[in-house]
Amino acid sequence: MKRVVAKFGGTSVGTPERIRHAARLIQAAVEAGEQPVVVVSAMSGETDRLLGLAREFGGDLGDRETDVALAAGEQACSALMALALRELGLQARSVLGWQAPVVTTGPYGSASIDGMDTSVFEALLGEGIIPVLAGYQGINTAADLQTLGRGGTDLSAAALAAALKARCDIYTDVDGVYTTDPRIVPEARRLDAVSHDEMLELAAQGAKVLQPRSVEFAKSHGVPMRVLSSFVEPGESAGTEVMAEPRIAEKRLVSGVAYARDQARIALLGSRDGGDIARACFEALAEGGIGVDMIVQAHSRTPGTINLEFSVAHKDLEAALGHLENALSETEITSETGLAKVSIVGAGLRQRADIARSLFGVLAERGIEIKVLATSEIKISALVENDAVERAVRALHAAYGLDQI
Amino acid sequence: MKRVVAKFGGTSVGTPERIRHAARLIQAAVEAGEQPVVVVSAMSGETDRLLGLAREFGGDLGDRETDVALAAGEQACSALMALALRELGLQARSVLGWQAPVVTTGPYGSASIDGMDTSVFEALLGEGIIPVLAGYQGINTAADLQTLGRGGTDLSAAALAAALKARCDIYTDVDGVYTTDPRIVPEARRLDAVSHDEMLELAAQGAKVLQPRSVEFAKSHGVPMRVLSSFVEPGESAGTEVMAEPRIAEKRLVSGVAYARDQARIALLGSRDGGDIARACFEALAEGGIGVDMIVQAHSRTPGTINLEFSVAHKDLEAALGHLENALSETEITSETGLAKVSIVGAGLRQRADIARSLFGVLAERGIEIKVLATSEIKISALVENDAVERAVRALHAAYGLDQI
Repeated sequence: MKRVVAKFGGTSVGTPERIRHAARLIQAAVEAGEQPVVVVSAMSGETDRLLGLAREFGGDLGDRETDVALAAGEQACSALMALALRELGLQARSVLGWQAPVVTTGPYGSASIDGMDTSVFEALLGEGIIPVLAGYQGINTAADLQTLGRGGTDLSAAALAAALKARCDIYTDVDGVYTTDPRIVPEARRLDAVSHDEMLELAAQGAKVLQPRSVEFAKSHGVPMRVLSSFVEPGESAGTEVMAEPRIAEKRLVSGVAYARDQARIALLGSRDGGDIARACFEALAEGGIGVDMIVQAHSRTPGTINLEFSVAHKDLEAALGHLENALSETEITSETGLAKVSIVGAGLRQRADIARSLFGVLAERGIEIKVLATSEIKISALVENDAVERAVRALHAAYGLDQI
Repeated sequence: MKRVVAKFGGTSVGTPERIRHAARLIQAAVEAGEQPVVVVSAMSGETDRLLGLAREFGGDLGDRETDVALAAGEQACSALMALALRELGLQARSVLGWQAPVVTTGPYGSASIDGMDTSVFEALLGEGIIPVLAGYQGINTAADLQTLGRGGTDLSAAALAAALKARCDIYTDVDGVYTTDPRIVPEARRLDAVSHDEMLELAAQGAKVLQPRSVEFAKSHGVPMRVLSSFVEPGESAGTEVMAEPRIAEKRLVSGVAYARDQARIALLGSRDGGDIARACFEALAEGGIGVDMIVQAHSRTPGTINLEFSVAHKDLEAALGHLENALSETEITSETGLAKVSIVGAGLRQRADIARSLFGVLAERGIEIKVLATSEIKISALVENDAVERAVRALHAAYGLDQI
């Protein structure tokens, strides 16, 4: 029998009716001859409710006790899912993070998975019982409960699938990964397949279908994933396969257009070209916990000096400038707000460095100014005015043929 | 330092404000030089909410998965209490049933405590950290979560107090044990002290301040308990001490008047006097899971035959009659509904068997008919009409001097 880890997110188990529907999807998998293992999030809203209660007492993410409170949400839901499966005539049993155990390491609130003992799962499967793992949680070597951060149940599912050598089906409230945001481009198409790297870039750029760490885990452990809708009848969601690259790399140049609003640009102008400034700059920002994106370094007009530019999220701008002014008191620092990032993502970009030039052309034709342009292996990103972001996304989506996939 | 296990029930931790107030009571204990260990219930309403969700899927008490869902309530609350204590500048850490571990045995939903490892508690106390145990739960030898039944957090607290050789303070929404229900008798007085046996009889008779199993546990392990209000400022609740008998036995004849409405009487008339009928009767009821109370056997007017009478809760009457008619097809069975039980409880009754007669007198003076009268070591109970129960309670409360304690 084909083993499948089936993960249901918060909206897919948000009400008793939705839990019942998710159980029917599992029943259909069993009837199709598969051997499912279920992983569940907390019912939607429950994590926020518990976090809100913890915050009433100064508890925050990163706190041992907050993790204890939060883990209760997935615990309850795993029990309810086991009961829902039993109601359909299936045998099922909840497995909590500490019961497996899922061994975690790192900080509370954003722990990573260090190991996963499969013996409990193997024993249950051997008896024809469907295990239902409470996602998002594990225990560290001190036997303290830890949670894996928002979206951590995706990581639980990917790790369990790797350990059980199973496929990983991620049931969510959309029926796959799209070429871009359908709210902006009605012609956006569902992708039948994306590579792990493409999924990572699309996820990091704002297409929040899968938690990036789960995709990284799946990539490094060779776990095949699918993104499916839990809001349709069994068999109705075609979904998107997330797979190793070779099978799909040649088919498309660009797989999707992603965007992120509310970015800011910071420029350090005319620094001496020695590398010291850049190192001091990024060290200061890293110590301040500020994420930096789209770094561009170029020679300036003054010989022997460079301009260093990068983007940060608008909400981090003030803190970033504070850190930089402390660390680089003699450097001229300027900033610009009201920006957005538009990216084209595609495994095919590896072989086609000239695409950056065509992207300039597509946006210039529409009168959209590119403030900063940065390329990575399978992505090209441009910083544009916030006001222009929707036009930019639509133009790129059409120009790279994504309307016709 | 004097060790104290302080247990807070659902209403005492029902809102963030109440949790904060409970934490202040603990802070006051610390300031008074005590070394507290906290045990918490789920926030009030939470157990019902989780049980309601489980029942949506056919899960009921007694079910492995229902226990997993229910245990989440105390888990979250233990974390919140630890955070609340920390906010007051105290060090605190939640301890879940499986982390201690509290070892349970018996059926899901009403497990009993088989053992309690104190090493986690001793280690925390040694570091000056207040442990906050999630009550109502433990794990059996298969590492399955189990709950202890309604009011089980009292049992968690009593067992922990026994293991730590500590006093056990039960914080609740009343400030002690009363001579009777103040809603019926405004003159009801708080008792400064009751014996474990008196507490057991008062609890079983409807004074639902402490879970009976916790009192039995405290009695057999010599744990001193106190019942205190968590709804007043620190030091303001005098409470009731629940203690071994000798210290208080001689002071009072009667300590309290308890009552329970909605009882029914079953009579087996004119059975042959051989014991077989009684055994068959109570075996049939025990197999049906029906609790029997107030058993009276007397010779009937027909020589060589007996009448057997007993009471059951009204809600169990129909089932009880069904079981009896199956088991005793040749016996005449009658029943009467609309009854209530009134009991006087007092350790002093051991030495004063003649009190039963005076109870007849007190009720007869008010024209209250006694349907069945049964005595146990420290209790005398009478079955009366439901309509007469309040008059009976008031009459007995006054007659035995409880208005003037």
